[in-house]
Amino acid sequence: MTTTTFAPDAIRAAVTAQRGWVEELFGSLAAGSQGHPGINRDTYGDGENFAHRLFVEHARARALDVTQDFAANSYATLPGRDRTAPRILMGSHLDSVPHGGNFDGAAGVVAGLVVIEVLRALGIAPRCDIATMAVRAEESVWFAVSYIGSRSALGTLPEGALEAKRIDDGRVLGSSIAACGGDPEAIRRGERHLDPASIRAFLEVHIEQAPSLVESALPVAICTGVPGNFRYPDAHIVGRHDHVGTPRRFRRDAAMAGAEFAMLLDRIWEEEEAAGFPMAVTLGRFHTDSAVHGLTTVPGAFAFSLDVRAYDPAVLERVEKRMLAAIPEIEARRRVRFELGKRASAAVGPVDPAIVAGLEAAAARLGIGTMPLGSPASHDSAAFAAADVPIAMLFVRNEHGSHNPMEAMEIGDFLDACTVLADWVVAEVA
Amino acid sequence: MTTTTFAPDAIRAAVTAQRGWVEELFGSLAAGSQGHPGINRDTYGDGENFAHRLFVEHARARALDVTQDFAANSYATLPGRDRTAPRILMGSHLDSVPHGGNFDGAAGVVAGLVVIEVLRALGIAPRCDIATMAVRAEESVWFAVSYIGSRSALGTLPEGALEAKRIDDGRVLGSSIAACGGDPEAIRRGERHLDPASIRAFLEVHIEQAPSLVESALPVAICTGVPGNFRYPDAHIVGRHDHVGTPRRFRRDAAMAGAEFAMLLDRIWEEEEAAGFPMAVTLGRFHTDSAVHGLTTVPGAFAFSLDVRAYDPAVLERVEKRMLAAIPEIEARRRVRFELGKRASAAVGPVDPAIVAGLEAAAARLGIGTMPLGSPASHDSAAFAAADVPIAMLFVRNEHGSHNPMEAMEIGDFLDACTVLADWVVAEVA
Repeated sequence: MTTTTFAPDAIRAAVTAQRGWVEELFGSLAAGSQGHPGINRDTYGDGENFAHRLFVEHARARALDVTQDFAANSYATLPGRDRTAPRILMGSHLDSVPHGGNFDGAAGVVAGLVVIEVLRALGIAPRCDIATMAVRAEESVWFAVSYIGSRSALGTLPEGALEAKRIDDGRVLGSSIAACGGDPEAIRRGERHLDPASIRAFLEVHIEQAPSLVESALPVAICTGVPGNFRYPDAHIVGRHDHVGTPRRFRRDAAMAGAEFAMLLDRIWEEEEAAGFPMAVTLGRFHTDSAVHGLTTVPGAFAFSLDVRAYDPAVLERVEKRMLAAIPEIEARRRVRFELGKRASAAVGPVDPAIVAGLEAAAARLGIGTMPLGSPASHDSAAFAAADVPIAMLFVRNEHGSHNPMEAMEIGDFLDACTVLADWVVAEVA
Repeated sequence: MTTTTFAPDAIRAAVTAQRGWVEELFGSLAAGSQGHPGINRDTYGDGENFAHRLFVEHARARALDVTQDFAANSYATLPGRDRTAPRILMGSHLDSVPHGGNFDGAAGVVAGLVVIEVLRALGIAPRCDIATMAVRAEESVWFAVSYIGSRSALGTLPEGALEAKRIDDGRVLGSSIAACGGDPEAIRRGERHLDPASIRAFLEVHIEQAPSLVESALPVAICTGVPGNFRYPDAHIVGRHDHVGTPRRFRRDAAMAGAEFAMLLDRIWEEEEAAGFPMAVTLGRFHTDSAVHGLTTVPGAFAFSLDVRAYDPAVLERVEKRMLAAIPEIEARRRVRFELGKRASAAVGPVDPAIVAGLEAAAARLGIGTMPLGSPASHDSAAFAAADVPIAMLFVRNEHGSHNPMEAMEIGDFLDACTVLADWVVAEVA
C-alpha cells in the first residue's frame, strides 16, 4: 500500500531509545500492584484501576489523546492526518490473575506506547489515528467471563454477563464496571464503542505462555491463530460424605469421581495430540470442600473448573461430546452426580494472513529471528477477530510461563517484538 | 466362670426401662454441640468439653464414682465387691468430626452407662468394678494422630505426638490437653493411668459406619476385628503454576498428578478386593491450593490426605509398597514431586475370641439377630488390643453412614446392643 522510507537501523535505534522509560514503567506497574507473592491487578478492582491510572498519567504526560469507554477501557491516541480513516489499534489487557506476573497483558499495552513514541521519534505524522488500548477484564479467572473489556467495547458481550459475580468476593460485574467509571447500561443496550469497520487492525504483543521460544532460542514468534475453548467455570460433583471405613460398595466418593474424570480428559487429550490435533485441558480448581473435608471422611463433595482449548472447532466439539458421553458412566460407576453448571465458550480466532506476511517480512528485513506459533492461550485479539477486525499477534520469549510470579521476559526480547511491530506500522502509516 | 441367674426377659426389661433418659441424654448431647450442619465436638475443644461436662453431671447425679485422668478422659465407675479385681471397662469417645453425627462415639459411652444402670436395676453388686470410660480425642481429623485419649491413658502415645498441631487452628496437642484439665507432662513421661493387667475387658458399642446391617436387616453386629491402617495426613504434590494455554509437554500439573495417584490407588484397591482382601482407600482432603488456584491457571500445587486400611497387615504392607513404587513413575511422567510428609499407622486390632463367643451366645439366648462384621473403621478398642487388653465390639445398625449429619441410629437397635452387652456383663460379674 505504501513504501517505508526508513532503514531498518533507524527503526531499531528509535525503539532502543525508548528502553529507559519502558523499564521504569514496568517497574512502576509492578510496584503498585504487588500480590504477595507476584502481581495482583484484579479485574475492575484496585489492582487494575491502579494500572489504568498509571497508563493515563503516562499518556497525558506525553500529550496523547486519552479517552475511556463505557467498559472503562483506556485509550491513548496519536491523531492521524485523516482522523476518519480506519485506525490502527494496538494493545492488550492490564489486569492479571491473582498472584500473577507483571508482563502478561501489560507488555502489549507498553508495546503500543513504544510504537507511538517511535513514530514520533521518526517524525512521522501518521496517515490514520494510531491508538493504544488498555483493555479491561481479560482474565476470566475473576468473573468467569472472557474478554469482558474488549467484547463490551465491540458490543458483543453476551447477555447476562453483567450479572456475573466475582469468584472471590461476589461483587457483580455490572456494578463493578460502574464503580470504575464505566456505564454498564450502555453495555447492556449492546452499544458499541468500537466499530469494526473503523479499525484497520488490532495488533497485540504478548509474552509467550509456554517456553516454546526459550526451547527454540528465538526472541519473537508470530501468531498463527488463537485457540477457541469451552469452559465449565464452576462444576460440582455430588456424592455422599461417609466414614473413612465405609466399604467400597457403599461409597459415593466425589473426589475419586473427580480423579476419574480428570484421567478421562487426560486420555482424550493424549489421543488428540497423538493424532496431530494440539489442544489443552486445564482443571484449574480441582478440590474437595475445605469446609467439611478431612482425613477420616470420604469426600461427598468435589468442585472443579474446566477449560478445554484447541485451534480447530471440530476438535472442541469432538472432545466435549466424548466428555459428556463419559460422565453418565462415571456417575453410575461411582454413584455420584455431576453438576457442570454454566458453560462458556470462545470461538477460534484466526489471524489476518496479509498482516502476518507483513510482520514476517518486517522481521526478516530487521534480522530478528522469529517462528510461527499457535497461541496456547485466549487473547483479546480473538474478540476482535470474532468481530471481523483483522488481527495479528507477536509473542515475546518468556522463560517461566505466565500467570505466575516467575514470568521472566527480557526487555531486549520485548524491544525486538516492538521493533517488528513498529516496522510494520511505519510501513502502513508513514 | 459364673452362671447368670437372670432370665433373658429380665435383662431385656431392665434395658428397656432406661429408654427415657437415654433419649434425653442423646438429645442434650446434640443440642449442646451443634455444628451447623451436624455435630461439632472438637477434640480438646469446646464441643468435646461440653460432652464431658454432660457425662460427668449425669454420672454424679446417679452417684457413680467420677474421675478424670491426665489425658482428661472421664470415667464413671460402679464399685465392685472386690475393688482390686480386674475391672470391666466399657465406653468409646465423645469427640466428633467437624459437621459429624450425634452417635459416632457417644453411643458407646451411653451404652456403658446403660449397662451400669441395668446392673443396679437387677440389684447386682458386681464382683469387680464396672466403669464407663468417655474417651478423648479419637477422631484423628483434628490432630492427625489416632487414639490420643486411649493411648495416653495406656501410656502408649507415640513420642512427639504431643507436639502435633490441630489442623484447623494450629493449637498444640500438649497445651490443649492442659487447657482441658489434663497433665501433658505425665503423658510425656509415659506414665499410664490404665494398667492392662487391671482390665478384664474393654467393650465398645459403636454405630456401624457402612450400612451392612441395614443391607442385612439386622440390628446388631459382633465385630470380628478392627482394621489397621497407614496414613499420610498431610501430603503435597509440587508442580508448577502455568498459564492455562501451556502445551502438554511443558506442564507440571500437580492436580493431574493427584488424579493419576488416586486412580492408581483405586486400581490397587479393586484388585485386592477382587482377590478377597477387604481394604479401603480414602483421600479425604484432595485439593488444589485455594489461595492461588483458578480457571486459567495450571495447578502447580496439590494437597491430599491418605488413609489406607485393611484387616491383614500383609495387605497394608503390599499396598504401601506398590504405592511407593509407583510414585516415582508419576513424578517422572508429570514432572512433579511428591512430598508425602509425616506417616502414621495403626496396628490391626484383634478381638478376644472368648468374649466374642460369649456375646454370640448372649445374643442367641436373647433372640437378638446379629451377624459377624469386620469393623470398617479404627476404634479406641484397637488401642486397648494393642496393649493386650481383651476387647470386643458391638455395632448398631445405622442407615446413612457416620461422620456426617445424617447418622440415623434407631434407639431400639441401640437398646438391643445394650441388651447383648448387659447380658454378657451380668453373666461375668453377678
